[in-house]
Amino acid sequence: MHALLPDLLGPHNAAQRRALSKAITLIESSRADHRVQAHALLDALLPHTGRSLRLGISGVPGVGKSTFIEALGLYLIGQGQRVAVLAVDPSSSVSGGSILGDKTRMERLSSDERAYIRPSPSRGQLGGVAEKTRETILLCEAAGYGVVIVETVGVGQSETAVHGMTDLFCLLQLPNAGDELQAIKKGVMELADLVLINKADLDPAAATRARAQITAALRLFGWHGEHAPHAGANEAIAPQAGATEAIAPRPPTWQPRVLEFSALSAAQAQPTRAAAQAQPMRNSAHRFDAFWAAVSEFQRVQQANGQWQARRQRQASAWMWALIDAGLKQRFAAHPQVRARLPEVVQQVLADALSPSSAAHQMLALLEP
Amino acid sequence: MHALLPDLLGPHNAAQRRALSKAITLIESSRADHRVQAHALLDALLPHTGRSLRLGISGVPGVGKSTFIEALGLYLIGQGQRVAVLAVDPSSSVSGGSILGDKTRMERLSSDERAYIRPSPSRGQLGGVAEKTRETILLCEAAGYGVVIVETVGVGQSETAVHGMTDLFCLLQLPNAGDELQAIKKGVMELADLVLINKADLDPAAATRARAQITAALRLFGWHGEHAPHAGANEAIAPQAGATEAIAPRPPTWQPRVLEFSALSAAQAQPTRAAAQAQPMRNSAHRFDAFWAAVSEFQRVQQANGQWQARRQRQASAWMWALIDAGLKQRFAAHPQVRARLPEVVQQVLADALSPSSAAHQMLALLEP
Repeated sequence: MHALLPDLLGPHNAAQRRALSKAITLIESSRADHRVQAHALLDALLPHTGRSLRLGISGVPGVGKSTFIEALGLYLIGQGQRVAVLAVDPSSSVSGGSILGDKTRMERLSSDERAYIRPSPSRGQLGGVAEKTRETILLCEAAGYGVVIVETVGVGQSETAVHGMTDLFCLLQLPNAGDELQAIKKGVMELADLVLINKADLDPAAATRARAQITAALRLFGWHGEHAPHAGANEAIAPQAGATEAIAPRPPTWQPRVLEFSALSAAQAQPTRAAAQAQPMRNSAHRFDAFWAAVSEFQRVQQANGQWQARRQRQASAWMWALIDAGLKQRFAAHPQVRARLPEVVQQVLADALSPSSAAHQMLALLEP
Repeated sequence: MHALLPDLLGPHNAAQRRALSKAITLIESSRADHRVQAHALLDALLPHTGRSLRLGISGVPGVGKSTFIEALGLYLIGQGQRVAVLAVDPSSSVSGGSILGDKTRMERLSSDERAYIRPSPSRGQLGGVAEKTRETILLCEAAGYGVVIVETVGVGQSETAVHGMTDLFCLLQLPNAGDELQAIKKGVMELADLVLINKADLDPAAATRARAQITAALRLFGWHGEHAPHAGANEAIAPQAGATEAIAPRPPTWQPRVLEFSALSAAQAQPTRAAAQAQPMRNSAHRFDAFWAAVSEFQRVQQANGQWQARRQRQASAWMWALIDAGLKQRFAAHPQVRARLPEVVQQVLADALSPSSAAHQMLALLEP
């Protein structure tokens, strides 16, 4: 048994917190002996994982993700939950100014012992960053965190990675048409189970317009095959035998939903904006009631129709295959004869002196024993 | 030297046509000895390839691709060109009713000996279909076809594959807003170098609206990184040393363009629609003048700024890597110990009894000698 296991699975105290940090450091290490230990630890933890709600939060820089997540975390703690906040930001090793890199951005939440905040592993490549974050989710679940929030920057392919490791993917949008088109263009909106128009109180008319437009877009595009009534998983659930007319009613499927969200509390939105801005964080708990009700309904619907578990199984399978693919490519690139021949072959292909299929054939032949 | 080579590279006659058909059949074969012959043939042909214009044509079913391509082919033949028409349709082996599967759909073009029409190889998987089509492009070029048109169905990922093997990717659209959103959603429009509003004469007002909307969308999204002034390849071309003010002017970059296209000729569009429909194919050559002028301008601009060759090199490199990746996966799946263990490991992952990273680690370890 791994030395960290008893503390990780034990009571919520400083020792567990230290064990969690040490375990994450272990899985973030790329040393071969650490990887062996990490795999042993993960497999031992596995029976104690899977019971959290894994919530992905995305949105372009400036949409207010950190403020939203901190306030949500405090709200959930107020509801008796323990909350872990992780991040996927492949750019963090390059840009320095990473999301969650500066803990002071979530000062109140990070000082609460019922919350655990971990910045993005700075590994450079998205694949590596995503793998470490997936493993960290499992560690947090084993340590008893009931909600694991995974934040991602609104650039690059990190949204797809976070969608692939969470139960519910929530997109934060500003009430701004250009933003919508960006999200549609990048294919992010089609990943969203919930779209939240953030800072709706700053321009209520624009927020209402944005909500109507995004709702129409989601309907028009017929997105979310996995939620749609004709999706394969549901077909399997519906009885195939029996009368064609009197089949049992199918459990309802989740339709992506658009909500408006105010950065200020509903009570604060009543008086002048100046007055509201003077006390931005007080009495704000019930701002989250509608949001969390939608999250809970999503969980109920998805668990009833089987999609909750099906999505996690797809994610686990896809994760395994992504790691196998990455490993195969790594082994290929490290092969001595490949390393010796590849540069010349690539040059021949670029110079039209060797067809790409011959080149691939030659390189693969080098792997034969 | 391969037996087919002299006829392929020889004069344009029935013998060349037979050799081309045989060569395509050879490269479409999956027999190992045929693959060896095919690679030898392709490498021998390579010095005689690359001189055609490779034109990708996409659009959803019903947009009128076949009619457009047949008329375009006849127009180009009228201009003294020889034209090959290929297709990428991964669904053809399933659905039967494949694009180009029924040659009678391009009856006039297929009966002209200056044209060569080949239906999609029916290999089921897109990767296989795309590879065979790429190789067929090389064969057609060696046989002296100056324009190679590659048609693709407007479903699935085949557009990306065809974009990855052509110099110019043209998207056909109906004057219909729903169509545009579909193309944006699927990420097809961002691939387009030219967007053609087909059948514009049926509803000129709608066509003009569609053209304005698509043009605005292309601008708003700032698509086409490879064409944009800040693209990496251009930076490399621009002189880095020297005065910051007095740098040489950069060669212009191509901006994606939207054209309206009438299914009827301009002359026919003048009288009543009934009269025009009575003679749909006559006097239609100059319908293509504006389209082909845009194609020729694209070629001139891209060749001048270096993107023509850079795009082909990127395509060749990406093609080689795709084949290597596919080969690595094939070898993995065929490994005896992997085949023996994989089903159980997958089951353990789906049952949460084994973490995906441990599973991948175990499977990759089986490959060690």
